[in-house]
Amino acid sequence: MRLSRYFLPLLKETPADATIASHKYMLRAGMMKQNSAGIYSWLPMGFKVLKKIEQIVREEQDRAGAIEMLMPTIQSADLWRETGRYDAYGPEMLRITDRHGRDMLYGPTNEDMITDIFRSSVRSYKDLPKCLYHIQWKFRDEVRPRFGIMRGREFLMKDAYSFDLSAEDARKSYNKMFLAYLNTYARMGLKAVAMKADTGPIGGDLSHEFIILAETGESEVFCHADLVNMPPPGVIDFDSDLQPQVDERLALYAATDEMHDADEFAKLPKDKQLSARGIEVGHIFYFGEKYSAPMKAKVMSSEGKEVVVHMGSYGVGVSRLVGGIIEASHDEDGIIWPKSVTPFGAGIINLKVGGEEADQVSEDIYAKLTAAGIDPLYDDKNDRGGVKFSRMDLIGLPYQITVGPRGLKEGIVEVKTRATGERQSLSPEAAINFIISEFENI
Amino acid sequence: MRLSRYFLPLLKETPADATIASHKYMLRAGMMKQNSAGIYSWLPMGFKVLKKIEQIVREEQDRAGAIEMLMPTIQSADLWRETGRYDAYGPEMLRITDRHGRDMLYGPTNEDMITDIFRSSVRSYKDLPKCLYHIQWKFRDEVRPRFGIMRGREFLMKDAYSFDLSAEDARKSYNKMFLAYLNTYARMGLKAVAMKADTGPIGGDLSHEFIILAETGESEVFCHADLVNMPPPGVIDFDSDLQPQVDERLALYAATDEMHDADEFAKLPKDKQLSARGIEVGHIFYFGEKYSAPMKAKVMSSEGKEVVVHMGSYGVGVSRLVGGIIEASHDEDGIIWPKSVTPFGAGIINLKVGGEEADQVSEDIYAKLTAAGIDPLYDDKNDRGGVKFSRMDLIGLPYQITVGPRGLKEGIVEVKTRATGERQSLSPEAAINFIISEFENI
Repeated sequence: MRLSRYFLPLLKETPADATIASHKYMLRAGMMKQNSAGIYSWLPMGFKVLKKIEQIVREEQDRAGAIEMLMPTIQSADLWRETGRYDAYGPEMLRITDRHGRDMLYGPTNEDMITDIFRSSVRSYKDLPKCLYHIQWKFRDEVRPRFGIMRGREFLMKDAYSFDLSAEDARKSYNKMFLAYLNTYARMGLKAVAMKADTGPIGGDLSHEFIILAETGESEVFCHADLVNMPPPGVIDFDSDLQPQVDERLALYAATDEMHDADEFAKLPKDKQLSARGIEVGHIFYFGEKYSAPMKAKVMSSEGKEVVVHMGSYGVGVSRLVGGIIEASHDEDGIIWPKSVTPFGAGIINLKVGGEEADQVSEDIYAKLTAAGIDPLYDDKNDRGGVKFSRMDLIGLPYQITVGPRGLKEGIVEVKTRATGERQSLSPEAAINFIISEFENI
Repeated sequence: MRLSRYFLPLLKETPADATIASHKYMLRAGMMKQNSAGIYSWLPMGFKVLKKIEQIVREEQDRAGAIEMLMPTIQSADLWRETGRYDAYGPEMLRITDRHGRDMLYGPTNEDMITDIFRSSVRSYKDLPKCLYHIQWKFRDEVRPRFGIMRGREFLMKDAYSFDLSAEDARKSYNKMFLAYLNTYARMGLKAVAMKADTGPIGGDLSHEFIILAETGESEVFCHADLVNMPPPGVIDFDSDLQPQVDERLALYAATDEMHDADEFAKLPKDKQLSARGIEVGHIFYFGEKYSAPMKAKVMSSEGKEVVVHMGSYGVGVSRLVGGIIEASHDEDGIIWPKSVTPFGAGIINLKVGGEEADQVSEDIYAKLTAAGIDPLYDDKNDRGGVKFSRMDLIGLPYQITVGPRGLKEGIVEVKTRATGERQSLSPEAAINFIISEFENI
């Protein structure tokens, strides 16, 4: 993409209400614009990151055997009355009346609806286990939206729902998601820890939140320090028994504030007692028959008996992850994108737009990186070098290639790695090859 | 995908309210489920088709130089008050009050919001032309939703918005979309005709609807018969003057009911007077300063003068296209998917699940087609042949490979082309190669 043709409205000033890094940088880097309190437009560059995160989540869900579908945003209140949640949910639910006076709502979650879909079509144990998911916008009418998209009102969530014949089988479904989540976050460059969590309005008795540590996190969390750097599961055989792999992690203490047991925590070696601020980027639940019993979601067992199915639900905060990644990866100059989610693979800075040689070398690098699938952003605008450098640092692409008259006299361009600040003087060809090689196996 | 693991809840009976082919088959083939009047869940197979259509729309928008972003579904009423549309829009707008008593709405379209985004960030003629689009769920509270997703309440639309310095430039933006749309529909196997159209609540004085002809179309349309089979533009140089290509089409009569001029139509040769039913699958508008003037969306011209920008908007009914394609391509047995949007490339029917040779040959075909990117659906369920054949015809994958004990004795499987009914007896290798070759250049 040529910057001159793109839509990247940067802000010079940080809006006063933006107190955390992600909120500040997403506004300044032209990734989003607030439309109403807690409701944002995703401008082109923010949208690209959102889509990349969504795609990683999707791939790991598919790998775990979950099947994608899409439920609507607007739901009928009737289903929520069947489960008793319509009255229980409180003012965070956006309640709507349609032109015929029917009670509707903007879905904050989908347990009730997916249970209805399941019960209307699945009859036999032969169709189990089943895990269905969708990636859809949700609305929670937060009383005080803040921190940009980290605590917005309209947000994108992946929510999966599992259906099993028994509590034992449901645990297997739970384990699949547990491990798939760890791989998901690792692919985005995040160190996420699964922590024992409260179940809140979803219900159930087994639940984990996936937390990334960040000073700006909203909640206090406690865990064994070794969990933070434990490598992700990697390749998983989802048809095998996953309990040992899950148990290996559950053996180490990790709990959110609500579930914290100070006595247990105190038993850890002093140097392993990690208490920190955390950002919730996922939450999984096993809640058994909580929805399937009142909604009569039953299947015929192999013995010909009607059995109420056991369910779990599994959420990933897709839009929130954009902020979470920035909280985990930025410096005083701006964002530092992990390669897997960066909006563009590299930036090309032409220091002499209109100069024949600088234009020609820049265009050539642009064409070759584009052909190699790196999707570069070419700064072909007529600004001063200082403006260009700070702009490129702010938006945080992992690599920058600077093409300027001084270097070109010696046949070189400069490659800067954003994360380390490391600079290399290379021929244009070598610069291209270096960047292509850095993106192999991403 | 193995059918035994998939979620494909077929219906034996056609629901009574489903009167047109797409509504009927989408329900029977387990593509969707109604949740409330005019509000549907996209079950896995329907979702796959929806995503493929969305991706074709996206690619053609990108090619035309439009830039993707994403605006939220919930909008503040304030913007709509600025343009006077909040009161003008009528009961089709879903009006919402949030917990703080603020007037909100579920966006039926986004002219007001995109104009606000534009005016808050673009200042100079140098940033024009600009065309921004998003693919987002919309809501129109139809008084009587019907025909399934063809006239639903919650629907997926691609809407693009162009910003130009003058009426002349705006016409260039209009022409880009005009031609890009024709390529878009052609890629889905549709013959769409651009017809002079009324502008309705969007406004403006230049507008075309893109119509596909179908007996079940909601509106009457009139056009020169040659337009229906005119080939799509194909490769377009979007930086060139596109007016001649557009004029070539506009030279032939084509109008929707509201814009029909019976006298003009009567001047066509009798055998070229085509009057038929049509389905609207796109609508483009040039409306000049209608939104930019009241909302003060201005840029500085090269002469240093403030100029109100000229705008257009361009919609494609993404979810409606799923139905439109089925209306255009089905028979009495079910759907016939064009290769470009089919949920799976081919179906594999194993007539003897559990039989060693049939299983082994089926698995081998499944593995090889999967590796070739054909994304086959493998019917590994334990049903009778008749059930399997009619199920596969109903869901309409373009090719079926039937693996049965009788053919295997002679080393052959049967390949059926769904659209023509043509059957070929081939070795498994030849069958695989045939299908792979049929998907080349799709």
